[in-house]
Amino acid sequence: MKKAQITLTLSTLLFSSLAFADDIADLTGATNMVWLVTASALVFLMQAGFALLESGMSRSKNSLNVVMKNYMDVCIGTLIFWALGYGLMFGNNPSGFMGSDLFLINDSDPTSYGVLLFQTMFAATAVTIASGAMAERTRFDAYLVGAVIITAIIYPIFGSWVWNANGWLAKMGFIDFAGSTVVHSVGAWCALAGVIILGPRLGRFDKSGKPRELRGHNLTLVALGGFILWFGWFGFNGGSTLSASADIGLINLNTQLAAAAGASASMLLAVALRKPILLTDTVNGSLAGLVAITAGCASMLPAYAVLTGAIGGVVCVLGGQLMLKMHLDDVVGAVSVHGFAGAWGTLAAGIFYADSMFDAKIITVQLIGIAACFVWTFCCAIIMYFAIDILMGLRAPAQHEQRGLDLSEHAEIGYPEFNTGSIAYTADRAGNMDLQR
Amino acid sequence: MKKAQITLTLSTLLFSSLAFADDIADLTGATNMVWLVTASALVFLMQAGFALLESGMSRSKNSLNVVMKNYMDVCIGTLIFWALGYGLMFGNNPSGFMGSDLFLINDSDPTSYGVLLFQTMFAATAVTIASGAMAERTRFDAYLVGAVIITAIIYPIFGSWVWNANGWLAKMGFIDFAGSTVVHSVGAWCALAGVIILGPRLGRFDKSGKPRELRGHNLTLVALGGFILWFGWFGFNGGSTLSASADIGLINLNTQLAAAAGASASMLLAVALRKPILLTDTVNGSLAGLVAITAGCASMLPAYAVLTGAIGGVVCVLGGQLMLKMHLDDVVGAVSVHGFAGAWGTLAAGIFYADSMFDAKIITVQLIGIAACFVWTFCCAIIMYFAIDILMGLRAPAQHEQRGLDLSEHAEIGYPEFNTGSIAYTADRAGNMDLQR
Amino acid sequence: MKKAQITLTLSTLLFSSLAFADDIADLTGATNMVWLVTASALVFLMQAGFALLESGMSRSKNSLNVVMKNYMDVCIGTLIFWALGYGLMFGNNPSGFMGSDLFLINDSDPTSYGVLLFQTMFAATAVTIASGAMAERTRFDAYLVGAVIITAIIYPIFGSWVWNANGWLAKMGFIDFAGSTVVHSVGAWCALAGVIILGPRLGRFDKSGKPRELRGHNLTLVALGGFILWFGWFGFNGGSTLSASADIGLINLNTQLAAAAGASASMLLAVALRKPILLTDTVNGSLAGLVAITAGCASMLPAYAVLTGAIGGVVCVLGGQLMLKMHLDDVVGAVSVHGFAGAWGTLAAGIFYADSMFDAKIITVQLIGIAACFVWTFCCAIIMYFAIDILMGLRAPAQHEQRGLDLSEHAEIGYPEFNTGSIAYTADRAGNMDLQR
Repeated sequence: MKKAQITLTLSTLLFSSLAFADDIADLTGATNMVWLVTASALVFLMQAGFALLESGMSRSKNSLNVVMKNYMDVCIGTLIFWALGYGLMFGNNPSGFMGSDLFLINDSDPTSYGVLLFQTMFAATAVTIASGAMAERTRFDAYLVGAVIITAIIYPIFGSWVWNANGWLAKMGFIDFAGSTVVHSVGAWCALAGVIILGPRLGRFDKSGKPRELRGHNLTLVALGGFILWFGWFGFNGGSTLSASADIGLINLNTQLAAAAGASASMLLAVALRKPILLTDTVNGSLAGLVAITAGCASMLPAYAVLTGAIGGVVCVLGGQLMLKMHLDDVVGAVSVHGFAGAWGTLAAGIFYADSMFDAKIITVQLIGIAACFVWTFCCAIIMYFAIDILMGLRAPAQHEQRGLDLSEHAEIGYPEFNTGSIAYTADRAGNMDLQR
Repeated sequence: MKKAQITLTLSTLLFSSLAFADDIADLTGATNMVWLVTASALVFLMQAGFALLESGMSRSKNSLNVVMKNYMDVCIGTLIFWALGYGLMFGNNPSGFMGSDLFLINDSDPTSYGVLLFQTMFAATAVTIASGAMAERTRFDAYLVGAVIITAIIYPIFGSWVWNANGWLAKMGFIDFAGSTVVHSVGAWCALAGVIILGPRLGRFDKSGKPRELRGHNLTLVALGGFILWFGWFGFNGGSTLSASADIGLINLNTQLAAAAGASASMLLAVALRKPILLTDTVNGSLAGLVAITAGCASMLPAYAVLTGAIGGVVCVLGGQLMLKMHLDDVVGAVSVHGFAGAWGTLAAGIFYADSMFDAKIITVQLIGIAACFVWTFCCAIIMYFAIDILMGLRAPAQHEQRGLDLSEHAEIGYPEFNTGSIAYTADRAGNMDLQR
Repeated sequence: MKKAQITLTLSTLLFSSLAFADDIADLTGATNMVWLVTASALVFLMQAGFALLESGMSRSKNSLNVVMKNYMDVCIGTLIFWALGYGLMFGNNPSGFMGSDLFLINDSDPTSYGVLLFQTMFAATAVTIASGAMAERTRFDAYLVGAVIITAIIYPIFGSWVWNANGWLAKMGFIDFAGSTVVHSVGAWCALAGVIILGPRLGRFDKSGKPRELRGHNLTLVALGGFILWFGWFGFNGGSTLSASADIGLINLNTQLAAAAGASASMLLAVALRKPILLTDTVNGSLAGLVAITAGCASMLPAYAVLTGAIGGVVCVLGGQLMLKMHLDDVVGAVSVHGFAGAWGTLAAGIFYADSMFDAKIITVQLIGIAACFVWTFCCAIIMYFAIDILMGLRAPAQHEQRGLDLSEHAEIGYPEFNTGSIAYTADRAGNMDLQR
């Protein structure tokens, strides 16, 4: 080769090398976004899962109202989180306690748009957890005010402690990969506060304090809701990488194993206690397994995911019994599934942390995070719901509760043609109904 | 380094450079296809959303018939679009008015297969919009004939004007990124024509012309349908890039914001007018927001997506009232959701076009496109349904309509065990039913 | 350029070349995993599709029980397949008849985790096929024991013959890309054995042996189940590449065309025979098209996919009639859809093999594979269900069957508020129910 040739070849190579670097960067950006957007869509669909689960576990006279709460908390939550929550959670955070910019993101870079989309779905998930626990007796407008405050303040501020790089819990090394605590416990402790302020549904406990079953009206929908939530969780956990990565395989394998173990453990517990194997308990068992693995799914070996999920399922069943003993009426078991199993899962993420299992220091940090979440969330939420109750009334009037919130709050009923025995209606031959609106 | 060494190194580098170029091209092709196929699947599932929404808003005696129309229009539509529609829409198009090859694609390249798959899902969406508006009174075979003609001719020919690179509207710069006009308005103007030819359902308006509510039989399914449609829209809008790209983040963030704003605006309107917050209106509000953002989701900043969606929600509610005043009986509000909000969204895509907002020239082109769509689609569809009505009868006999199309058209009923008051049946102890087939 | 410069430039280029190779390998791994995980999620959701389809085609008194079988076979199946099945199927397989390692995968590489996840979803699909056929009369615990054995032994051992690189059928060149035989026929021949051992439901055939319709209680859910299964199939077939690839476009286009053709053919057959166009037959027609294309979706041109699907739809309808003539009571038509159409599709994958159509040698291998599947699966399953019947009882007591398995097996009922005429209940004003538990 002559020198001129060499120089020419080198120039060509340098040029194409720069072009490759650009191509690879572009393709990486595109691939990351494909996964982030796919995962966001999966997490979004969890709203449908919650709506079905909660509606199916309620009585038909409230089926619409439950669904409407889910539908509207996504809608309002999306706008509020864009306006305020995202900035509080992910904005510049020198104090470690709260972000301070990135409000109303409008003109930004592609990645920021994608991350905002994904985080919006997470915020909506946290909020919607409370709706099921508080079903069948909460006023629609009061619920929405609560949902706005959770999305705008309670959830993002706690989130900024963990998922903002400068958050004080983040700096301590608190492990919560996809949000057993940040999302699920926050939702559950809000639900617990709501349930306490509201009191139980009429007829939930008899005069001697013994619980009476108020059966859900459509258990097929409950199971469908469970399947859809499980499906969405592959985006919830897998997407928390925030980018395309070969690690998603382990994350979602752990997710699958923990869900399966949660339901299986819940079933085995029923068999051991010689109780019937209830569909509601089974579905909740799988969800508890999913909640439990959420914190540690990226840093745990599969065998520990099975263990974490199985214990999550047991914790959920026992937690549900504890709630009943305390005369707390959580319609769908949200506090057990998302709160108790979420706390267990956060602890498990420390105990079974792959590189350093059973490390007292790591476990201590996990316990601090769990406690911080409970204190912050429960205190804020109990004050909030108390204030809402004083100012506008959190609980629907007894007459509305008896008639059903569908009719009293929305002037629609879920199944106008089906005789459910609980709603008087008259229909003429053409199917027209006379309902007092 | 010696010269021989340099030459050897250079050869190696040149060789690996060529290999990189190949690898990057392959990986880009694979990544694009992953997104295109994922998005296609999401758009496909919108069919389930439509089926639930339309069935839930109908009376139980027609619930099956509605679902069957959705199921079969995807099936027949898929075959017809492959045979004819795709070629008319995307084939070589020197005139700007119609494609002329690519029929019955059989032996082609990977990308073509993927794009055909994606576009098939779009065609099926356009067609299925009409089924909801025309529910509860249209003959099954007549509906399918209409669906075939829309898929084969009406939709692809209009589509070729906009999405074929040589289309006359495309050349004018008409902006319709994912089909507010091409898909949703086309479907809606077909629906409008169908509704006009059919006339209202028996009992929809009383003798004085006042509308009477014919309530949908299952509003939980309506909400589930809404959630599924929203979920699918992330593929509908995001997939319209036809390739993996970092832009999907903005596109789907806009999609989410507009849907949320549409439902919220619809709710606020109800509150302002002191009307009950209906689930049906709320779901339709979110869908109107989605339809509205479809045209401009890739070329609008988030704040304008919120505005576009919110106005879409309001347009939809007001449009529904307009339809009622004109004594047009659109069972699910398809004309308002897909037509009026689609036209608004197409206009908004021009008004809020990122690089050049409020540009009279762009807005004029948008108006031309909106008008062209209405004229072409509505004229074709009204002639088509008129001809179908003359030749084979579009409307089911009154007796069938009263008994319900499930029984008269399919010899099945949706809920044979549930006493809906509208169908006489007898069931023996084993659950066997005697239905006259 | 001076020599030193040249050397420096060369070093830089060599260095960046190595970096590119790494980047491309990483990105390829990430992209492959994104698709594998997305496809796994889609296949998982098929469980919800099966649950809805099977529950909707059953009577309401068994609706929960059917769903619970689906829910629990995924859960137990996931754990068993991780513990045992995956190793038998994909482990080191020198004999060609069975794998021998990879049990309880715990500490492995990212790709292995992803593939295990995907294959777990496949195993769950195979198992769940039997539940629908055997619905409404099978004991819950006996069913689960069967599901465990299928997941642990019957399915993975047959699978190792075909999908393990050393399998004896694999070595013969047997074509079954995504499992028309490996998954669907295995499930169906298990179902056939179960149906034979169980006998028909009470009242399914009258004294003269004439079949009587036992109508499904919720056909809207059947259609939703069909849509969800179809949606999931894009992951089932498309994901069987096990990596991102531009070939997914053809695979899923073929999938879509075959499903559409299957339903259309089933409808045309009804029209030709002057029978009503049943929703159940239409949905099953599309599923038969999907099952049929599963074997050959990656090696067939689109026109042959249409043909394969259409014949699949016809085979399914005729197969259903054959089953009835043989007095075999398959509640959902699983044997026809997954068995007969699966066998046809496996044959079609040979007949229409793109590079070498109508090749007698290829077709012979396909016939051997189809026969081997039937012999292995049916023999194993009939022995298994016979043994279960002897040891613990496969069939529920007649009184339970009459009352419904929901109440007898789970002490819950699916729709406690709806008067279905088949279950006596009393509800007080608050909606409380008295059920004997």
